[in-house]
Amino acid sequence: MSLSPAAPAMQSVRDYLPLAKARLDPGIWRYLADGDGAGDEQALADIRLMPRPLRKLRGGHTRLTLLGQELAHPILLAPVAYQRLFHPDGEVASAMAASAQGGQMLVSSLASQPFDDIVRAASAGGGTGPWFQLYWQGDRARTLRLLQRALAAGCTAVVLTVDAPIKQATLQLPDHISAVNLEPGEPPATSGSAVFDGWMAQAPAWDDLAWLRGQTALPLLVKGLLHPDDAERAIAAGCDGIVVSNHGGRVLQCGPISIHALPAVVERVDGRVPVLFDSGIRNGRDVFAALAFGATAVLVGRPAIWGLAANGAMGVAHVVRLLRDELEMTMALTGCARLADISRLSVC
Amino acid sequence: MSLSPAAPAMQSVRDYLPLAKARLDPGIWRYLADGDGAGDEQALADIRLMPRPLRKLRGGHTRLTLLGQELAHPILLAPVAYQRLFHPDGEVASAMAASAQGGQMLVSSLASQPFDDIVRAASAGGGTGPWFQLYWQGDRARTLRLLQRALAAGCTAVVLTVDAPIKQATLQLPDHISAVNLEPGEPPATSGSAVFDGWMAQAPAWDDLAWLRGQTALPLLVKGLLHPDDAERAIAAGCDGIVVSNHGGRVLQCGPISIHALPAVVERVDGRVPVLFDSGIRNGRDVFAALAFGATAVLVGRPAIWGLAANGAMGVAHVVRLLRDELEMTMALTGCARLADISRLSVC
Amino acid sequence: MSLSPAAPAMQSVRDYLPLAKARLDPGIWRYLADGDGAGDEQALADIRLMPRPLRKLRGGHTRLTLLGQELAHPILLAPVAYQRLFHPDGEVASAMAASAQGGQMLVSSLASQPFDDIVRAASAGGGTGPWFQLYWQGDRARTLRLLQRALAAGCTAVVLTVDAPIKQATLQLPDHISAVNLEPGEPPATSGSAVFDGWMAQAPAWDDLAWLRGQTALPLLVKGLLHPDDAERAIAAGCDGIVVSNHGGRVLQCGPISIHALPAVVERVDGRVPVLFDSGIRNGRDVFAALAFGATAVLVGRPAIWGLAANGAMGVAHVVRLLRDELEMTMALTGCARLADISRLSVC
Amino acid sequence: MSLSPAAPAMQSVRDYLPLAKARLDPGIWRYLADGDGAGDEQALADIRLMPRPLRKLRGGHTRLTLLGQELAHPILLAPVAYQRLFHPDGEVASAMAASAQGGQMLVSSLASQPFDDIVRAASAGGGTGPWFQLYWQGDRARTLRLLQRALAAGCTAVVLTVDAPIKQATLQLPDHISAVNLEPGEPPATSGSAVFDGWMAQAPAWDDLAWLRGQTALPLLVKGLLHPDDAERAIAAGCDGIVVSNHGGRVLQCGPISIHALPAVVERVDGRVPVLFDSGIRNGRDVFAALAFGATAVLVGRPAIWGLAANGAMGVAHVVRLLRDELEMTMALTGCARLADISRLSVC
Repeated sequence: MSLSPAAPAMQSVRDYLPLAKARLDPGIWRYLADGDGAGDEQALADIRLMPRPLRKLRGGHTRLTLLGQELAHPILLAPVAYQRLFHPDGEVASAMAASAQGGQMLVSSLASQPFDDIVRAASAGGGTGPWFQLYWQGDRARTLRLLQRALAAGCTAVVLTVDAPIKQATLQLPDHISAVNLEPGEPPATSGSAVFDGWMAQAPAWDDLAWLRGQTALPLLVKGLLHPDDAERAIAAGCDGIVVSNHGGRVLQCGPISIHALPAVVERVDGRVPVLFDSGIRNGRDVFAALAFGATAVLVGRPAIWGLAANGAMGVAHVVRLLRDELEMTMALTGCARLADISRLSVC
Repeated sequence: MSLSPAAPAMQSVRDYLPLAKARLDPGIWRYLADGDGAGDEQALADIRLMPRPLRKLRGGHTRLTLLGQELAHPILLAPVAYQRLFHPDGEVASAMAASAQGGQMLVSSLASQPFDDIVRAASAGGGTGPWFQLYWQGDRARTLRLLQRALAAGCTAVVLTVDAPIKQATLQLPDHISAVNLEPGEPPATSGSAVFDGWMAQAPAWDDLAWLRGQTALPLLVKGLLHPDDAERAIAAGCDGIVVSNHGGRVLQCGPISIHALPAVVERVDGRVPVLFDSGIRNGRDVFAALAFGATAVLVGRPAIWGLAANGAMGVAHVVRLLRDELEMTMALTGCARLADISRLSVC
Repeated sequence: MSLSPAAPAMQSVRDYLPLAKARLDPGIWRYLADGDGAGDEQALADIRLMPRPLRKLRGGHTRLTLLGQELAHPILLAPVAYQRLFHPDGEVASAMAASAQGGQMLVSSLASQPFDDIVRAASAGGGTGPWFQLYWQGDRARTLRLLQRALAAGCTAVVLTVDAPIKQATLQLPDHISAVNLEPGEPPATSGSAVFDGWMAQAPAWDDLAWLRGQTALPLLVKGLLHPDDAERAIAAGCDGIVVSNHGGRVLQCGPISIHALPAVVERVDGRVPVLFDSGIRNGRDVFAALAFGATAVLVGRPAIWGLAANGAMGVAHVVRLLRDELEMTMALTGCARLADISRLSVC
Repeated sequence: MSLSPAAPAMQSVRDYLPLAKARLDPGIWRYLADGDGAGDEQALADIRLMPRPLRKLRGGHTRLTLLGQELAHPILLAPVAYQRLFHPDGEVASAMAASAQGGQMLVSSLASQPFDDIVRAASAGGGTGPWFQLYWQGDRARTLRLLQRALAAGCTAVVLTVDAPIKQATLQLPDHISAVNLEPGEPPATSGSAVFDGWMAQAPAWDDLAWLRGQTALPLLVKGLLHPDDAERAIAAGCDGIVVSNHGGRVLQCGPISIHALPAVVERVDGRVPVLFDSGIRNGRDVFAALAFGATAVLVGRPAIWGLAANGAMGVAHVVRLLRDELEMTMALTGCARLADISRLSVC
């Protein structure tokens, strides 16, 4: 929309995509892009919002308190594995960016840098320690040791991912990149069904969640629930939050569209705990849409990685800022001065 | 549909698009084409109309009285900014064309020629003075001065645009083109939120509309309302008309499809003031469709600019004539001799 | 579906399209293809039919009695103008083909060959005289003279087309082709609205239809009705049949999908007169679908002209035969031995 | 999803398609790909499934007992004709693969190898004899002789195909390939309607099915029913199973989408006999979807032939294994440990 050749190229999150693609090894790009998430993006884009002009909005803002933490905006960085695949600065860069923007980051169990370094980067940016995304480690003892390492480093909340029990087709990692915080793994059992007796035998079950609840007093969330009955059961198990997510379409082919599943979960949870939303967020208008359907905050995965690949911590920070600016503009045009003003009434 | 190479090429409005595109600087073309209006065009095209043959139609016409003005047809030129970007004759050409076709034009606050010249061109064509489209100027004093300049020049109605409070990404204007009727601007405040404390702080609110109503006895319309409650409030504030518009999809990404929003506004207004329709009109059948859903008249933006770019005043006049001819043909085929005969019954 | 290079290329009607296109002057092809009929074709293709195997079908057939005439199948040739544009043998070839296949043809008011020659060709093939498609000639006297010429030649039914009152954009006919059965025309009046006072003033109205009913004892049909109320009124005026048609999308842009309009007309007519269907038929399955929604017979326009352009009378005859074979196969697979067995129950 | 160039290329069934296409004569590929089955594939892909994490699944499996036979999984090889067209090892390769994977195969009446050889291959793999797909042979005597040859060879069930009574457009078979188990055919009668008095006169009717039931005590299924009334009638005739199928869209153009027809048949059958599903299965998630809508097992046609063309028996076996693995993964992610746990509750 400019005649000037000097205009900044990065005016929206989507502008980072081609830059990231150009910088990454094609195999890594395919790994990042893999999955069945196009339906999520389209479903969000199909949501139409009703402008409400002429309202007084001076002093509006996007601040919120989430599980006791003060955040400048409701845009969290999703727990993406092996971030050094995308930029040498890896998770440390993401943590710095999230913190500098007044937001929060979820550190993956498959982080490619030590928890201590990541937490330190977050603190240097002025933020509290990041949240820790926990993958079940096959049994309780191994899982507990991993959890303890993350908490000792200074993570401030625990998010158990439950929707990816099956080890995904292995990405052949470059030699210098690994999940440095994990213990060396054991091969899955191979007698009987590879699925039922192998991978699934290492997956957590509801009783494991109850056990986990007893291991920490920090906030505990479950990520990857889409059915209201499961949300109910998670609350009954003492969880402090739900992350509605289809894992970016990377696990179950043709699973639910996350945004379509969100309202039923929100209705069932009925405010007892915050419901976060993950999957398909590509701009600030999508953030608004998710909040309009009842989410308290959102997780952003691939867009942040586009920024990371393109420009390290600066790129991640800019992506978060763009999302927040677009969220503010959407709020302004729909007449919402605060997050609490966002509701289904804004949806056409 | 002709074997003759000499047949006129411009048989529909759409024929002007490639000609305009070829004549304009690519940056200017992108500026014109920018926005999310494809959904509006498709929604209008999806409306199917029921032919009603064998009715007597002799003496049918498209005349109407709108806010006290006699118009030959219900097709008004939308307030497009900086029209000298598209043709050296700019707004003057548009005014001449609208007037010559017995219609009406809305002059933008961002017109690139003096109000006096534009009003004179309209009068030379035999028409009354054009309507003035008002952008809020940050405060009442500056806004009033702009309004007074337009009214002093001879504008005959005021249309306050309320759906674009946020200054859009700047088009880098060529040196010789500017908003000549505006006072030099002030930069928006930058402390706090750029959106809430910057742009939005300069936007009008409902009390500003009430104040504006007191500044002129001319007809006052509000452009950019899509919600019935806002239409109600505008009438309560003394407005004489509503323009249902999504600003051609240029402001809120994925806002409502205008034609889908129209019926609820028309139902709420219930004939108390005229409801005009703007967004996506590309042929006379679209005009008919908007009227069938309750609009009193329509605004046409981009198609008129295609004509302007292609052939100056003659191009604009031809576009308006084509739209009117197509409207007449649609009326004839649906058995409607007068605008008042057009109703939802014509929609399949 | 064959490995043999010698396999016949023309296995479906659609195979004639590229051959016709290759043989015709591009301007004539555009004239033939013109219109907004894609929606009709798609709507027919979207109808899914329920197979009913294991039924006894020996002795099944597609015969019917239509307005007193015995036909081998319900596939009539639509009244296409100026058929010498497409093949030197013109309407004579179509008449021979229709007759040879035991069907019927509608001769256009704009036929490019004398009525006598066309009727003679039909009789030579063993058929009764074709039906005459009547365009209103501006006034009753001229219309009556045209009608009398057609009836004197031996036409056996009259079909008044009412959906194209507005003279369409003129095709610049080659010198040697004209509507040889018409009187020299008069230019339409040009004062006032070109549409309302020009073209429409020459269009027929309901009282003209009543007058026409009095001019002949032959079957009289009205072609181009889509609204049930109009069908009702045509029956009240004494008509013997209705042709539901949108003129192949050539008149009103974005008019109704014919097949969607058919059921309401059939329901209102309720068997008092036959309802014929026109628009979008491209194969025998489409014929079946139209009959399933209540049509007694169908008109086929463009596909027959593809055959005419490709191979004269032989091409038309083959197209009709292909349609009939496909209709028979569809009947067999849906368990319908006779046309009367076809109903909405065959539609999924 | 791998950086390694040595990663196996065949990670899904769809990967076999281009390999098969590259290996086959284009005419044979067209013959295989022919038909209107895209709607079936899309309809299956549009079914979204609800993940249910955290359930205990150890010991899950895909075993079932079907018509008295123990199968390791519910994925049967559909009866594809002339399999030597696709690979020199033909039906023998398919039988070996089905048996080795613990599944079952349907041998076509149009098999290109002797029944004895095919049954022997199945037994060598450790399986019971395959099922025999029966095409009606015009009269009962010829049909009975064919049936007796198949049963004498050791087939263990009979599946009468009823949806393809009309001889399809002939594929010009290469000289060395034929339906070796059939008697030399007779040309269909040609007087009267080619469809009704020719092809259909050789098709079976309901009384033929009743007769067939009396000719064998083995399980008898009917393949190609889509209407619940026909399923009811087949059960009344003593059939032991129904195969819901639209013959891959190869017979009736725009027939029902099979998966849309399945639920009504399942509801009517109400568990009295197993309902198998055929048409459009392309991965294990599709198998799950068909079972969720009530199928007991599925038939897989083209994907298995892709495997056959690409790699003979190994290719077929790998395709079946991939489908089973994907089915297991889908079961695991949806919380279903056994086939009996799969239900409509898994569908979003």
